[in-house]
Amino acid sequence: MEKALIVLSGGQDSTTCLYWAIDRFGAEALTSVTFDYGQRHRVELECATAVADFAGIGNTCLPIDTFGALGGDALTDSNIDIEDGTDAATGLPNTFVPGRNLIFLTYAAAYAYQRNIEHLVTGVAQTDYSGYPDCREATISALQRTLRLGMESDVTIHTPLMHLSKKETVMLARDLGALPAMALTHTCYEGKRPPCGRCAACELRAKGFAEAEIDDPLTAPQ
Amino acid sequence: MEKALIVLSGGQDSTTCLYWAIDRFGAEALTSVTFDYGQRHRVELECATAVADFAGIGNTCLPIDTFGALGGDALTDSNIDIEDGTDAATGLPNTFVPGRNLIFLTYAAAYAYQRNIEHLVTGVAQTDYSGYPDCREATISALQRTLRLGMESDVTIHTPLMHLSKKETVMLARDLGALPAMALTHTCYEGKRPPCGRCAACELRAKGFAEAEIDDPLTAPQ
Repeated sequence: MEKALIVLSGGQDSTTCLYWAIDRFGAEALTSVTFDYGQRHRVELECATAVADFAGIGNTCLPIDTFGALGGDALTDSNIDIEDGTDAATGLPNTFVPGRNLIFLTYAAAYAYQRNIEHLVTGVAQTDYSGYPDCREATISALQRTLRLGMESDVTIHTPLMHLSKKETVMLARDLGALPAMALTHTCYEGKRPPCGRCAACELRAKGFAEAEIDDPLTAPQ
Repeated sequence: MEKALIVLSGGQDSTTCLYWAIDRFGAEALTSVTFDYGQRHRVELECATAVADFAGIGNTCLPIDTFGALGGDALTDSNIDIEDGTDAATGLPNTFVPGRNLIFLTYAAAYAYQRNIEHLVTGVAQTDYSGYPDCREATISALQRTLRLGMESDVTIHTPLMHLSKKETVMLARDLGALPAMALTHTCYEGKRPPCGRCAACELRAKGFAEAEIDDPLTAPQ
């Protein structure tokens, strides 16, 4: 049996990928990792656990305390509150790290290597909202080559959403039976549940569901 | 001025690279990072600080708590003592991670990116003792490409020791004036100072100095 590991953030995209992986590899072949890197909203971690539980697959939370220290401040000044710190210009937490997905996927590959798992699945996409250079296909392809050489493994990184629009991602989620799990996901930049509906992340999510003409289980009236 | 960042472990090789970088970029253009990843011997961290101080360059210690959790055990069982755990077959600490240098260099690249540093220097070598696949030139070359794509940067990874034997590394250290700093470095697998002289690491170091016909300042009679 081919085994697969999914990087699960608790958001809409990685949850869709989880169902893609169930469809591709089978739930029994699948497990997931979630990174606790000091993100602003702890609710993300709870959502990742809830989604994995709902889908019936295992989930391991891996701590990353390095991001906060990279800036230099959090390391030397323990008074700085990492969780509350946000860059006004970017809206990113002050734990944002260039090439962050490279770190996530390298850790995931190491975790997979030690368990004879050859397939990694991640929700990165170069379409629409994701302008991060570490989400692009060329980067992921180069990383896969690096991991294969650096670990002497046959790891493959699957990116089912790489070229999909948000609308197409929502339609894929529907086709894969992932919509019920969407009620458990987290998207809001404000960290609110129910979501604020006004931040850029909420607006993008709403736009995708609207264009797909599908009700979002997270916000639809019950 | 071109700036450079060196990954400094406190060992013989990274110390030699530090002096290579001083020669190439100048001490004022140089800073260093050391990773505290739960290594068995804390003396390594002290040696890195001492070497950086001796050479007159800055040093930042970055914590990595993820390695211990990757195995799954240290995360779920806080009774496991990471520092004491050693695999009997490999002699490696149970925090050993496949592709560990990929993590180190990706963090180093992120640290450098945020400070407009374009040059990374690392002591990895594919000659002699270093059979790790993440130390090979092909891996480092693939990683450099991944980092450039993933961070949209022009980072260059320098590996001055890549094709040198231990003997040649010792001779390079002498030519660069790095020998006095060698008294501050740490090599011994047993974590002993003065070094045990019997472990594989001590024997390899002694062999390199002997073949170069140079006294090791760490063990030579004062």
